[in-house]
Amino acid sequence: MHLGKHISSLQNPLVRQILQLKEKKRGRDKTGLFVLEGLREMQLALKGGYEITKVFYCTDIIPVQELKALFPNKDAGTEGIELSREVYRRVAYREKTEGVLALAKAKSHQLQDLQFHREHPLILIAQSPEKPGNLGALLRTADAANLDAVILADPKSDLYNPNIIRSSVGCLFTTNIGVGSSEEVFQFLKENEIKLYSAALSASEVYSQLDYTGPVAIAVGTEATGLSEKWITESDANIIIPMKGQIDSMNLSVSAAIIIFEALRQRNFD
Amino acid sequence: MHLGKHISSLQNPLVRQILQLKEKKRGRDKTGLFVLEGLREMQLALKGGYEITKVFYCTDIIPVQELKALFPNKDAGTEGIELSREVYRRVAYREKTEGVLALAKAKSHQLQDLQFHREHPLILIAQSPEKPGNLGALLRTADAANLDAVILADPKSDLYNPNIIRSSVGCLFTTNIGVGSSEEVFQFLKENEIKLYSAALSASEVYSQLDYTGPVAIAVGTEATGLSEKWITESDANIIIPMKGQIDSMNLSVSAAIIIFEALRQRNFD
Repeated sequence: MHLGKHISSLQNPLVRQILQLKEKKRGRDKTGLFVLEGLREMQLALKGGYEITKVFYCTDIIPVQELKALFPNKDAGTEGIELSREVYRRVAYREKTEGVLALAKAKSHQLQDLQFHREHPLILIAQSPEKPGNLGALLRTADAANLDAVILADPKSDLYNPNIIRSSVGCLFTTNIGVGSSEEVFQFLKENEIKLYSAALSASEVYSQLDYTGPVAIAVGTEATGLSEKWITESDANIIIPMKGQIDSMNLSVSAAIIIFEALRQRNFD
Repeated sequence: MHLGKHISSLQNPLVRQILQLKEKKRGRDKTGLFVLEGLREMQLALKGGYEITKVFYCTDIIPVQELKALFPNKDAGTEGIELSREVYRRVAYREKTEGVLALAKAKSHQLQDLQFHREHPLILIAQSPEKPGNLGALLRTADAANLDAVILADPKSDLYNPNIIRSSVGCLFTTNIGVGSSEEVFQFLKENEIKLYSAALSASEVYSQLDYTGPVAIAVGTEATGLSEKWITESDANIIIPMKGQIDSMNLSVSAAIIIFEALRQRNFD
C-alpha cells in the first residue's frame, strides 16, 4: 500500500464516489468496483483473491500500521487514503465502526469459471432470493458446509449490495459464486453431469430419501413463492422437507441448511 | 366481543397503556398483559388458547365485521375499541399495517405445566438467546418441526417482547413454551427422564451419530458464546455440527434446525 492524499472535505469527489458505489447498483456495474467495510471483511476479501484498489481509514479509530501490515508491498496498486473523522462518519455504514473501508474490484462470476474442490461437487442454487439478508444467511451456511459453489440464478440485485456483504459476515468473499439465468444454469449442470434436486412446495420426495453422494446441486426459491415452474420440470428430483406445524414458515436459509447438512451427513462430512 | 368506546385523543390513558406494554417489560410483568398486532397474529393467539381482553381497530383500514366474526360471543369478556386513524398510527408498529391490535393475557409457562403430544417428546432448549430475532426464528422452526415444547432457560427478556412476537410470525402462540432457570430445567428433565444433548463448540460427538428416538431435549446457547459450562457438564452427550468453512459462523436457528431435523429424520418424520 502506498499512502495517498488526506480527505477532509465532504465535497471531495471520492466521497461522492464511495456513497454512489454503496447506494447504486448502476454505479457498481459501471465501474466494476464495490465498497466493503471493516477490517475482518477486508481480510476475508484479500483471502478470497479480491483486488483492493483503495483503503480509506480514519486514524482516530484505527492505527495506520495495522493496515500497512495487511498490504506489505509498498509498490502494489493499493492506495491508502486518510479520512477526517467527519468524512469517515459520512461514508461509513456502521455505528460501531472499525475505522476502515475499501474499494475492491468485483469478480466476474461466470458459471464457466467455477472450480470445484470435491470430485463430486455439492452446490447450492438460489433462484432470485428476495432479501439481501436471505442471501447473506445462505452464504454463511455455504461457508460452514464448505460447499463447492453457490449459484445465483436470475438474481434481482447484484452480489455487492452492502446489505448482502454485511449479512454474509464476509462469507461472500470466501465462497465460490456463479451467476446466470435459469437456462444458463440448466445448461451448465447438464454439461457437468450434476444432478439437480429442486426444493418444491408439494408433491415431492422427502429430502432425506434421496442420494446426495454424487455430483448434486440443491435449488431453492424464494420464501414467498418457491422456485419457478421450470425448476420443477427441469429437475432430476423434487424434494420437500416434511413440516407438521400450524404455520410451516421456515426461513429460507434454515430450509436450505437442513437439506445441505443431510447431504453432508450422507457423505460422512467429508 | 362487545363494542366499547371510541378513542380519538392521543392523551387517552389506554393509548399510554398500549405504548407502555409494548415498550416496557416492567409494564407487561406488572399487568400480565401484552400487545399483539395484526389479524393473523390474533387468530393464532386465539388458536393457541390466549385470552384477548381488548381489540383496538381502525375502521379506515379494517371492517369491524371481520373482527366480530373472530369473536362471535357478544357476552364474552373481549371489548372492541375503535381508534381514530391518528391514534391508531401512534400505537401501531407496522408501516403496512392491518388496522388491528389487541391486548392479551400472558400465559404462565411453568415447566410443570408442559404437556407433550409425543410419547417420546422432542424438545428444544435455548439458553439466554441474545436477540429477539433469534428466538423468533427458533420458534418458526419449532412450529415447522411440531416440537413437543421449547424451553427457555435463564431468559434475558420476557417472551412477549414485540420483536419476538413479530419475528416468530405468530409461532410464539402455537408452540408449547416453558421457562425456567438452568437448574430448574435440569431438574425437570431428570424427573421426566428426558435425555439432554447440549450443542457444544468443541470436543463433542457429531450430532448425527446420536440416537434421537427416545425422549430427548436439544440445548443450544448463544451465537456468541454457546451454552454455559454447566450445560456441558450436566448433559447426557455434547454434540457438534462439523463445519469446514473459513468463517464457520452459522446462524443459531440454522444450527438448531439442522439438529432438530436430524432427530425427525431418525423418527421417520413421525
